[in-house]
Amino acid sequence: MAGKKQNSLSRLCLHTITTKPWPLEMAVEKYILSGIRGISVWRNYLHGRDLNESSRILKESGLEVVSLVRGGFFTGASFNTRKKALDDNKAAVDEAAAINAGMLVLVCGATPGQSLEVSRGQIRTALETLVPYAEKNNIRLTIEPLHPMYADSRSAINTLEQANELAEYFNSPWLGIAVDVYHLWWDPHLEEQIHRCAQGNNLYAVHICDWKSPTLDMLNDRELMGKGIIELNRIIGWIEKKGFSGFYEIEIFSDRYWKSDQDDFLKEIIKSYLRYGL
Amino acid sequence: MAGKKQNSLSRLCLHTITTKPWPLEMAVEKYILSGIRGISVWRNYLHGRDLNESSRILKESGLEVVSLVRGGFFTGASFNTRKKALDDNKAAVDEAAAINAGMLVLVCGATPGQSLEVSRGQIRTALETLVPYAEKNNIRLTIEPLHPMYADSRSAINTLEQANELAEYFNSPWLGIAVDVYHLWWDPHLEEQIHRCAQGNNLYAVHICDWKSPTLDMLNDRELMGKGIIELNRIIGWIEKKGFSGFYEIEIFSDRYWKSDQDDFLKEIIKSYLRYGL
Repeated sequence: MAGKKQNSLSRLCLHTITTKPWPLEMAVEKYILSGIRGISVWRNYLHGRDLNESSRILKESGLEVVSLVRGGFFTGASFNTRKKALDDNKAAVDEAAAINAGMLVLVCGATPGQSLEVSRGQIRTALETLVPYAEKNNIRLTIEPLHPMYADSRSAINTLEQANELAEYFNSPWLGIAVDVYHLWWDPHLEEQIHRCAQGNNLYAVHICDWKSPTLDMLNDRELMGKGIIELNRIIGWIEKKGFSGFYEIEIFSDRYWKSDQDDFLKEIIKSYLRYGL
Repeated sequence: MAGKKQNSLSRLCLHTITTKPWPLEMAVEKYILSGIRGISVWRNYLHGRDLNESSRILKESGLEVVSLVRGGFFTGASFNTRKKALDDNKAAVDEAAAINAGMLVLVCGATPGQSLEVSRGQIRTALETLVPYAEKNNIRLTIEPLHPMYADSRSAINTLEQANELAEYFNSPWLGIAVDVYHLWWDPHLEEQIHRCAQGNNLYAVHICDWKSPTLDMLNDRELMGKGIIELNRIIGWIEKKGFSGFYEIEIFSDRYWKSDQDDFLKEIIKSYLRYGL
């Protein structure tokens, strides 16, 4: 993992979804040419093509493959649905191992019409199988708590407190947490829960972007760091104070930016990132 | 306040915004003809017309005016902005008194680019003036915690825990809480915080509707009770268990329903309400 270095890009990682229009080869090439050191690969960039070739491209790039994004979605009304989800998560662990990713991000899932408690039970049950499988494959799993506006259908884990409880329940070096400022910035307990997360050795990953005000779309209207209303400097301060030394992963879903010139967007991302002095 | 009565409409209250296309007179007439007993009046239905006349219409209707909706939005970068907001809240208290409303609902406010802590301080400062003013006018204020997806610009009070803390800080019979299931359903601490709210004599109002899955608009895509994913029976159970005897106020913002035939919509609302056996 990259060490801390002032005013450099050594801890900057991009999620391929951020520059959505670029296929894997192009993203890899553009990131390298910009001096970026880390890449988090979304699974759709691997599917429908040869996994060995993708693995080779990533290996030869010299980029650190920080995370494979994303597994999870463990919940479901029927056993069959949940079994399929678990199988798909094992496949994701295999893919993560194939591309030498350090982690697999988990969006844990929620099923409309099913109580959140039931979903949380199903998530725990799935992890009881998946954590040992991940350990066997040398892949660390990271629970990503999602904003409460996604509690209906995407995740029944909506606060860092809940993610901490889940990680502490398993108490495994193969299960930690991805803190995404987009999902958690509003939480009055964020500082204390980041502290708890780091103290418990569960702070595995940090995702950054910004919250646009007003936000016009619940999914794809995220903002570039510094252009929204999240107090990012402050949250990064809490994280750094706890000794986090990993990558800052930039994950921006934005129809607006995706429609724009991606080279210009990448330049803006880097300019924005450098302001945080990481 | 209406007592509990099985399978009746005695505890049903409608927010005028729910049947948005109907002006005040029409809403009042339709509600009465449907057997509804309570009305919560949105301020825009009072503005641009004679307040005494509105007051007379409401008085003659025999409907209980449960709440005036809404005051708040206390925050702002400049003193002038905040002073204007406070003056407007005093005017809202006056209006509430004029129409004999029991309560004034407060959406506390948040200002983009200002930290949530600063906003919360400004909210407290405003309440220090507004609570005594409300007491003088015999109007109870209710803090309505808003969903975290509104933390950027509408409210820095986003959980029932925060609202409880604020109400307990003031410890006044003139300041309580409006629990709106739309904003709070996802909270893993909801049951314990409802308990705390009721124990502290702060549970003044309950707003109900449902969360549509998927939700396509962050503001105006709410669902009719029973058609979304909120476990309303369960939450009502927690509330009833604590001895709440007030109205269940139906507050549905929905471009879809507003475009539909409002008489049919009202019938659907009543049908849905009756399923909860209140």
